[in-house]
Amino acid sequence: MSGCTTPGYAYRLLATDGHARAGVLTTPHGEVPTPTFMPVGTQGSVKTLVPAEVAATGARVVLGNTYHLWLRPGPEIIAKAGGLHRFSRWPHAMLTDSGGFQAFSLSDRRTTSEDGFTFRSHLDGSKRVLTPEVAMQVQGQIGADIAMQLDICPPGESPRAVLEDACRVTTRWAHRCLAAKREDQAVFGIVQGGTDPSLRAAHADELGELPFDGLALGGFSVGEPIPRMHETLGLVVHKLDASRPRYLMGVGTPLDLVVGIGAGVDMFDCVMPTRNARNGQAITRTGRVVIKQARYREDFGPLDPTCACPTCTGGYSRAYLRHLFIAKEILVLRLFTEHNLHVYGTLVRDAREAILAGRYAEFTREFLSAQEERPKGVPSA
Amino acid sequence: MSGCTTPGYAYRLLATDGHARAGVLTTPHGEVPTPTFMPVGTQGSVKTLVPAEVAATGARVVLGNTYHLWLRPGPEIIAKAGGLHRFSRWPHAMLTDSGGFQAFSLSDRRTTSEDGFTFRSHLDGSKRVLTPEVAMQVQGQIGADIAMQLDICPPGESPRAVLEDACRVTTRWAHRCLAAKREDQAVFGIVQGGTDPSLRAAHADELGELPFDGLALGGFSVGEPIPRMHETLGLVVHKLDASRPRYLMGVGTPLDLVVGIGAGVDMFDCVMPTRNARNGQAITRTGRVVIKQARYREDFGPLDPTCACPTCTGGYSRAYLRHLFIAKEILVLRLFTEHNLHVYGTLVRDAREAILAGRYAEFTREFLSAQEERPKGVPSA
Repeated sequence: MSGCTTPGYAYRLLATDGHARAGVLTTPHGEVPTPTFMPVGTQGSVKTLVPAEVAATGARVVLGNTYHLWLRPGPEIIAKAGGLHRFSRWPHAMLTDSGGFQAFSLSDRRTTSEDGFTFRSHLDGSKRVLTPEVAMQVQGQIGADIAMQLDICPPGESPRAVLEDACRVTTRWAHRCLAAKREDQAVFGIVQGGTDPSLRAAHADELGELPFDGLALGGFSVGEPIPRMHETLGLVVHKLDASRPRYLMGVGTPLDLVVGIGAGVDMFDCVMPTRNARNGQAITRTGRVVIKQARYREDFGPLDPTCACPTCTGGYSRAYLRHLFIAKEILVLRLFTEHNLHVYGTLVRDAREAILAGRYAEFTREFLSAQEERPKGVPSA
Repeated sequence: MSGCTTPGYAYRLLATDGHARAGVLTTPHGEVPTPTFMPVGTQGSVKTLVPAEVAATGARVVLGNTYHLWLRPGPEIIAKAGGLHRFSRWPHAMLTDSGGFQAFSLSDRRTTSEDGFTFRSHLDGSKRVLTPEVAMQVQGQIGADIAMQLDICPPGESPRAVLEDACRVTTRWAHRCLAAKREDQAVFGIVQGGTDPSLRAAHADELGELPFDGLALGGFSVGEPIPRMHETLGLVVHKLDASRPRYLMGVGTPLDLVVGIGAGVDMFDCVMPTRNARNGQAITRTGRVVIKQARYREDFGPLDPTCACPTCTGGYSRAYLRHLFIAKEILVLRLFTEHNLHVYGTLVRDAREAILAGRYAEFTREFLSAQEERPKGVPSA
């Protein structure tokens, strides 16, 4: 069974367990076991790591940010290099966002019209126009396996009229993106609708009619309360066409992943594991280690005794990692990034195995009961 | 033949070629083929790299800075961790400086007396007293294989009276350091005397009488003209006791290494390869690549086609490295550091092979003729 429409792409559903799914996404750069977590390589680099280290965490898709790459180094350079895979030496699958979210949130003096976004670059103030056609052209030059349609992503808890309008414009842009896409590049549509289940379901149906290779959920984790996001996911995700991969954009914490997978999500991306690493925060399966805390000053144990990553098995003590962080040594950013991505990679791998074994509910219970701090507002199982 | 006096240490001279020497320094953490270049791990980390990567550049000694480690994390923490080797996971030999140079140059409100240096920490303003005894105690706690005596290092081109005084005090401190040293830790004496060959020779003789495990040349590359340093090295190095390792402190460029080795130096350290890497400057055997330059914008060739390091053989193009540097991506600092240390490691390895083959003069000529910019003031062969 495959709902992908672009040659070279396929999604194969291997097993379901409740709403949770285990599958395989085939791309021109190899197979991706799903559910999967996609590390963010904003500017063509998963910060601090070489590609082999990223792959060793289990990741098989890396995300590039079109907004950033468009402004610098520019898509012409990347195209001349043979595409972002060759430019950045990442051999596995790659996905780019449309640039819309960053154009919306990062740039100066942005205006939105039916045609697209007009904004000024946060780097040099140059005026840019991001239309659905430009988004597809730039993503085509970058050359990821999967491109994303341009969409309107309103802030969390926006009024219903704003959400409805976002859905309407996003659908019109969906048609324009599909008309403008590179033939050999997959494109995913983006379902909006905030935390309103009926809007979400209607938009999912609308986009599901179009020949997208996958369907994404945008507009989550944009300011709404997390329990409300979890609740909406449980009501909405399983309504997305089951024959295509489902991608929850910009989410999230390990808990968000466990809840999202349980709701039927196949793909996630989030800056959290890499960004928190650079802030000295190690994520573990059961909580987190804020390494600057004085209690680690003479703690000569490993960062996370349950973890098999190079940082945790390399003999580096919490005391040493704390020293490096406080002394602003770059090495620790790398050691933490590797660790955090390994935790995410292991989490989705274990979730997949649980789904294949028909024990995802048990996996979820075990995950929740192991949390050091009781998560707030977890939906009842 | 071994002039080392501490059990577990030995220097074995394998071959000479003119003044140039090839040898092996034995330490409790393994053998060090000399000449050798020692990367600087100021705060217990060769910035951006894990120990295995440092070792892969050929380095077999890493230098730690006593001043920095004394202030942070503090020698007690390092001692509790089992010493800096275990704390930082470096399995090969290690050397610490005395802290004097940094106390002299980095700290606030420093005063110098016969007893030592009194200064305030650049980190928290705390008052510290660095005497020869304290220097040996702190270095003993850090636990490197080789400690350095506390010395007075006057600026380049200081008046003769200042240089003479530095030699006198350094000799008195030499006696105190030897009396205070850990029995199982090697200590090197530091010859001063600026660019005055007669002062240098006299001080070398004076310190050569003491049971140091090696002799270092301090007070070079501290502001004097480089040709003058090269000239002085040619007149002075071969006068240092041939039975002990000779260490030229804080030097230098690839050219400095080639000249220094020709003069009889066995060991070098310098922040240049690691610091320049972080400034986007790749050092090559024939010159340098300043990666931010516009000419590399669409240069899809490797950083240094003659280099076998992971950066140069990993498929990263100059255009990609330039993009990473301009986008302030941490990865490039690491890729450049690895490259630069590899160039240094390869240079000393090739120099050693040339000495063993009796062709060091030819090696020097080849090195000089390959330089893209003609070095100024190279002493005639």
